[in-house]
Amino acid sequence: MSDSSLLASLIEALRCLPGVGSRSAQRMAFHLLERDREGALRLSDRLREAVERIGHCKVCRTLTELEICRICADPGRQRDTLCVVETPAEVLAIEQATGYRGLYHVLMGRLSPLDGIGPEELGLDRLEERLASGEIREVILATNTTVEGEVTAHYIGEMAKTHGARTTRIAHGVPLGGELDHVDRGTLSHAFEGRREY
Amino acid sequence: MSDSSLLASLIEALRCLPGVGSRSAQRMAFHLLERDREGALRLSDRLREAVERIGHCKVCRTLTELEICRICADPGRQRDTLCVVETPAEVLAIEQATGYRGLYHVLMGRLSPLDGIGPEELGLDRLEERLASGEIREVILATNTTVEGEVTAHYIGEMAKTHGARTTRIAHGVPLGGELDHVDRGTLSHAFEGRREY
Repeated sequence: MSDSSLLASLIEALRCLPGVGSRSAQRMAFHLLERDREGALRLSDRLREAVERIGHCKVCRTLTELEICRICADPGRQRDTLCVVETPAEVLAIEQATGYRGLYHVLMGRLSPLDGIGPEELGLDRLEERLASGEIREVILATNTTVEGEVTAHYIGEMAKTHGARTTRIAHGVPLGGELDHVDRGTLSHAFEGRREY
Repeated sequence: MSDSSLLASLIEALRCLPGVGSRSAQRMAFHLLERDREGALRLSDRLREAVERIGHCKVCRTLTELEICRICADPGRQRDTLCVVETPAEVLAIEQATGYRGLYHVLMGRLSPLDGIGPEELGLDRLEERLASGEIREVILATNTTVEGEVTAHYIGEMAKTHGARTTRIAHGVPLGGELDHVDRGTLSHAFEGRREY
């Protein structure tokens, strides 16, 4: 609003949120100021707190304010199974959807030499140490099916093999309830190649 | 994430934003922590600053950190024309879309006795003072076409008349470029009733 530089800079700042353009940012700013100032203050505090205190787990690299995240520190988890994912959001999705009880390695990205993202940036040195300890028997590769995701999966698969761990890849195919004519061609062709005995 | 209570409370806090459910909140939290911590800190500061310093203009009641907002304080604005709107967002919309150079009164709501919103809550005592000063010749009613919006417009229209000000209502009808068969019935019937000589 030409009328209030503080309001204008709040609207501008809200645009750092993914999926928020200038119109939604405006709507958000007005909503907070007119109807939820308490929520705005709480959000302000939570943002600062999160940025200042949330770092990465020393073991699996996921986001956490602890030195070692709750999953890595949980004595009830299977310590011989390790699932490799690209982001902390994927850890959350797996935890919520599956009964998986093993551990994780969170890459926080994928191999992409052109962007300067090599094995070290993904903590693969740390992962290799974990593999070298001999404790891990199975590495589940759950990186995405993008080119970089596949390259990363391949790289980690080779690494796991040299340390004698079994490697598996999560299944890709037609989603449950998905209709064949609504599924993209890549997925459908992958589902055919990956067909199993019935 | 079960794994980080700070992350969980950031996700929860983000849900105070309009249109943000738990999934978007999650996506926003991960985005900020993984890719834009600087933006998150800036947003935290802007939120606190805005809540602590933005109040209402003493004259027109719009949101501003100033005692009297820039529009009310602008000597270049026509002081004999006053547009009545429900929210500061509508001031912004009018400023951006039209060449209107008069002043505003921002109701910050609409008459709704059942919700305990009477003339005082909408600053109509203050508006009456402005009308009584005799400076205002035209009051443009730009409240919405909801029942409460119309009741509010009627109430203010009567008030303006007793002070000898002309009252006008912005035109409602088929939007420019709108197709008749895509316009709701209320709008279409309103457009017919409000037809003009061609």
